[in-house]
Amino acid sequence: MIVILKDHPNEKQLNNLKAWLGSMDLAIHESAGVNHRILGLVGDTSKVDIDLIRALDIVEDVKRIQEPFKNANRKFHPLDTRIEVGENAAIGGGGFCVIAGPCSVEGEEQIVSIAKAVKAAGASMLRGGAFKPRTSPYAFQGLREQGLRFLLAAKRETGLPVVTEIMDLSQLPLFEEIDLIQVGARNMQNFEMLKELGRLQKPILLKRGLANTLEELLMSAEYIMAGGNERVILCERGIRTFETYTRNTMDISAIPSLKALTHLPVLADPSHATGRSALVRPMALAAAAAGADGLIIEVHNDPQRALCDGPQSITPKEFEAVMLGVNAILNATRKGEQEQAS
Amino acid sequence: MIVILKDHPNEKQLNNLKAWLGSMDLAIHESAGVNHRILGLVGDTSKVDIDLIRALDIVEDVKRIQEPFKNANRKFHPLDTRIEVGENAAIGGGGFCVIAGPCSVEGEEQIVSIAKAVKAAGASMLRGGAFKPRTSPYAFQGLREQGLRFLLAAKRETGLPVVTEIMDLSQLPLFEEIDLIQVGARNMQNFEMLKELGRLQKPILLKRGLANTLEELLMSAEYIMAGGNERVILCERGIRTFETYTRNTMDISAIPSLKALTHLPVLADPSHATGRSALVRPMALAAAAAGADGLIIEVHNDPQRALCDGPQSITPKEFEAVMLGVNAILNATRKGEQEQAS
Amino acid sequence: MIVILKDHPNEKQLNNLKAWLGSMDLAIHESAGVNHRILGLVGDTSKVDIDLIRALDIVEDVKRIQEPFKNANRKFHPLDTRIEVGENAAIGGGGFCVIAGPCSVEGEEQIVSIAKAVKAAGASMLRGGAFKPRTSPYAFQGLREQGLRFLLAAKRETGLPVVTEIMDLSQLPLFEEIDLIQVGARNMQNFEMLKELGRLQKPILLKRGLANTLEELLMSAEYIMAGGNERVILCERGIRTFETYTRNTMDISAIPSLKALTHLPVLADPSHATGRSALVRPMALAAAAAGADGLIIEVHNDPQRALCDGPQSITPKEFEAVMLGVNAILNATRKGEQEQAS
Amino acid sequence: MIVILKDHPNEKQLNNLKAWLGSMDLAIHESAGVNHRILGLVGDTSKVDIDLIRALDIVEDVKRIQEPFKNANRKFHPLDTRIEVGENAAIGGGGFCVIAGPCSVEGEEQIVSIAKAVKAAGASMLRGGAFKPRTSPYAFQGLREQGLRFLLAAKRETGLPVVTEIMDLSQLPLFEEIDLIQVGARNMQNFEMLKELGRLQKPILLKRGLANTLEELLMSAEYIMAGGNERVILCERGIRTFETYTRNTMDISAIPSLKALTHLPVLADPSHATGRSALVRPMALAAAAAGADGLIIEVHNDPQRALCDGPQSITPKEFEAVMLGVNAILNATRKGEQEQAS
Repeated sequence: MIVILKDHPNEKQLNNLKAWLGSMDLAIHESAGVNHRILGLVGDTSKVDIDLIRALDIVEDVKRIQEPFKNANRKFHPLDTRIEVGENAAIGGGGFCVIAGPCSVEGEEQIVSIAKAVKAAGASMLRGGAFKPRTSPYAFQGLREQGLRFLLAAKRETGLPVVTEIMDLSQLPLFEEIDLIQVGARNMQNFEMLKELGRLQKPILLKRGLANTLEELLMSAEYIMAGGNERVILCERGIRTFETYTRNTMDISAIPSLKALTHLPVLADPSHATGRSALVRPMALAAAAAGADGLIIEVHNDPQRALCDGPQSITPKEFEAVMLGVNAILNATRKGEQEQAS
Repeated sequence: MIVILKDHPNEKQLNNLKAWLGSMDLAIHESAGVNHRILGLVGDTSKVDIDLIRALDIVEDVKRIQEPFKNANRKFHPLDTRIEVGENAAIGGGGFCVIAGPCSVEGEEQIVSIAKAVKAAGASMLRGGAFKPRTSPYAFQGLREQGLRFLLAAKRETGLPVVTEIMDLSQLPLFEEIDLIQVGARNMQNFEMLKELGRLQKPILLKRGLANTLEELLMSAEYIMAGGNERVILCERGIRTFETYTRNTMDISAIPSLKALTHLPVLADPSHATGRSALVRPMALAAAAAGADGLIIEVHNDPQRALCDGPQSITPKEFEAVMLGVNAILNATRKGEQEQAS
Repeated sequence: MIVILKDHPNEKQLNNLKAWLGSMDLAIHESAGVNHRILGLVGDTSKVDIDLIRALDIVEDVKRIQEPFKNANRKFHPLDTRIEVGENAAIGGGGFCVIAGPCSVEGEEQIVSIAKAVKAAGASMLRGGAFKPRTSPYAFQGLREQGLRFLLAAKRETGLPVVTEIMDLSQLPLFEEIDLIQVGARNMQNFEMLKELGRLQKPILLKRGLANTLEELLMSAEYIMAGGNERVILCERGIRTFETYTRNTMDISAIPSLKALTHLPVLADPSHATGRSALVRPMALAAAAAGADGLIIEVHNDPQRALCDGPQSITPKEFEAVMLGVNAILNATRKGEQEQAS
Repeated sequence: MIVILKDHPNEKQLNNLKAWLGSMDLAIHESAGVNHRILGLVGDTSKVDIDLIRALDIVEDVKRIQEPFKNANRKFHPLDTRIEVGENAAIGGGGFCVIAGPCSVEGEEQIVSIAKAVKAAGASMLRGGAFKPRTSPYAFQGLREQGLRFLLAAKRETGLPVVTEIMDLSQLPLFEEIDLIQVGARNMQNFEMLKELGRLQKPILLKRGLANTLEELLMSAEYIMAGGNERVILCERGIRTFETYTRNTMDISAIPSLKALTHLPVLADPSHATGRSALVRPMALAAAAAGADGLIIEVHNDPQRALCDGPQSITPKEFEAVMLGVNAILNATRKGEQEQAS
């Protein structure tokens, strides 16, 4: 961390600052330039509150050199983390995991039949929303508790582990049998929720917020990990940009960037990111080519009658075609990697 | 609402669509162009789920004509709403209300002394954070329950109504004596929280999210109002842009825009919006000139030692100068309005 | 085009509007709702000035239904356009074209040697900047006229067609022997330049602006095409977002989106989009997987000494590895397409 | 400037770097931390190419401490710059200058009559577009050369200095008698144009780009000033954000921020920033309250028939009301400043 002092700092305040920094076990290297005097802080600065220092009268600016996240940082955990989900699925560590299912659970028959279809096509987990975040209070809000029951019925029927979104901590007791708890984009910085999920022994799927940076995503992962739960899976699901043709802009470069910054697994969600079913296949292929650890895709047996987010859902038949394409990409690229390695 | 059909729509699906629209008491005006066939929907479309229609195979696009918010809409409530807060304060309806206080409550003595200072300078409400949303789990998270107690002590001491942020619904029982509950920018789309606050009989201060549009802000107000609680106060506190000199970009034009779209009161928060104490005065003056119903300003008796958000706090003495400037602006502009009116 | 009228429009003004619209050969379908009266315009609205109508006192809003671009629109030209460049290269129409070379031409020896290396690795065109847009007036601005001479020497030596950026129309006479003229992101809306390039008989590489939508990119292509030059190649090179880890955010979904909206070829530039050499390979693979017609990649024989944009350049050896990966992707995906088609 | 080295840098490369930095008269302060080794560069770093250093294999990151602009920097020129325009107007240095006129010059009678009206209401300069940047090639592109002639006729008639936009350097000979040359938002980073304008002896009105930072705006001013022309006037005219109610988002905080960073005058353009005539008055007042050196406002005697940008123009009568409001603000705030000063 570099502290840039203002011209002619009050020496008493400066000494106070140095004493306080020293009390946090930081060594201080001072250097003076023509226009600026600088303090270089050496040691573990990840827990230093940068805003506190920036607030001081004698300080012009503070710049971080170390990343502010630690548990999630690849520098301190060089190997990929592999996270087991349920009894027979895993994400990260070299495999490729596809999660599929409808935007919303609409009925037991619907979710069971989609579960069978996506399992047959090669999905290894089932998704389905029970609590739905909707911009309008007048839009369908999900089947809620009943939706969870239907989802668990599909789990029993197919053996697929299930993932679904939690929208408020008061719902947590209902998530006992859910294998992977999803934190939606709008809750990525719901810090009280993150802290509580950090106390669980259950994997968490953390989606990137619509206007959040990769560092902020990693800091939210850090909230969960700091509580003791290290089983965090990250998900790129599109960010808000000026483009209106797609609902959001899928940041494919977030995939290799996150893989460089952290050891945690990284999924991609081409359905929410684009909001258009015609773009799901090309973006799923792009995510696989860019090195994602898996995908989460909306599949609906009747997108025409889906109760929400219909425009971005694909049919089970289209999902099969996506799986074929993705596998072809994986064969082409991962084989290439093995050849380069050998 | 305008539904634009694809070329050569399947007539059976089209008839299904028309029947469904008719069942919602919407009249349908059809017109055919060279390249497009169009359905114009006439009636109350605010509760129609636009995504459902957009998902249909035969539909190319759907465009709203009516705003999707109703309770918050000025068209249906032309007069400004005035919201009483506590026993002796009110926001909206022509007055100008200044809320001031520290970012965080740090101790009883601190909050009481700031409360006295801002009251003396003309503030009519006291702010102070007890639960603090921080990007890093390693940063100071607020005094929490104890912070609320200190804040209530300052309320008793000065008679100022108090406002503070709720971060999770589980904290709600602690907010009994709080006069105005703040929903922070990161919780603007925490829909479960909004629904629950809609069941209270207490005014809510709803801050605009960092990357949210005015329509989304109004839809979140609609969530609260749809539950029966019509006492919602909106607050512009800066949006995320590419600019890095300021922490966020204060959207001053949101003030007159919101005043045109809704009857609800609109506050402005120059402290969080800019993140720089030197910008609080000019932006407070700009907000007053643009027609805000009030301000919320961070004031700290020792910004050098503030535990969070220090760089944006001003001293009680600087706050006095802001109040003088704001009053001069109000005299100049509101007097002008009266003269024009007479 | 849909014109939404205000309540109780002045009938005389309304008749004027209708007469004016009729004079442009547009048929008018009128419909009246509870809160709104609407005019539906039928005919070729691509040349109607939407702002003119929106300005009228009696008009609340105007919404487009047809896209405002015509020459570039796939609806009117369903087949992919293939554009010949120089004597032996082509972009679009099913092939895959890789353009490679240094950010800046730094000397004759440098550009010739890189040209040979990228040709050997499979590039079919050479890039190299002579006029360089730099944010700071104090940064290296390119070898300019001399740089063009060196670039043409490399063309003669290798037979590779060459592409380079024009920064001002006064430079046009120097571009006689350049095979493909690049319009940089910052000039995407330099309309006087676009008009002049529309009078040439030479292909144009049009890069998307940093904060521009796909529709705006297509309108800029339309400027060139409206002048008679239909040989426009589009290029996604990253947009500005809040992310700071990458220099820009590469919008991979722009590739299949543009392919749906237009018949023009679409290239992708992973070097400028990411600003990091380590991301060039994964993003090149992603672009190929998403259906791009080709790539433009920065290659430098000594990235350590590159005079500009060094951090995003890769070495000829790394470029070979990218080509291998891209070809594996193309084999995997395009083979799949042929199988599906047959 | 701080250079952060990677772990275990190659010592030979490090020595090369140090020698090169030394050759630019920079002193080097080295310090070593637990995870990082750092070089602090002392001296004039404004001309160091930061990308060159960042490209080196041994470098992890580079952070600037000094601002990269020099001529525009208030640190080196503490006093406000006052720029004379034409024979009887000036911008900056304590006065308040209002420029008004139509978006486009449409005819001699139109521009002369508007010129008289805005002069009567207190404007001290006349604006009017002759060359118009339009997104669509099918929209009205301005009267061009003829428009300039009409504008100059209005100048002769009223004595008002005139400002109009240049869109390409080839138009420069036509701007001989224009008093203030405007560089539009889309040309803010047209570096060849900026260089050429830097060779003139004429004031330049430089508008901020739609997605550009304040530092980038100041670097573009630096381009002009580095050529010897120090008469640059900056203008905030709205940035692109996610908001759609307004055409752009007017960044009022840019005004006091720029006033802190530079000695150059700062204007505000509420017409283009909002795109709505109803917002011109509140935003003009806000800009005056925030400390702008003046305003540029679109006024049209018949906004209903304006050939472009009609929705944001106000009538001469509305302009009078804006001037009254602005003067009331100036009296209130600047009087306050004098009292504080005395």
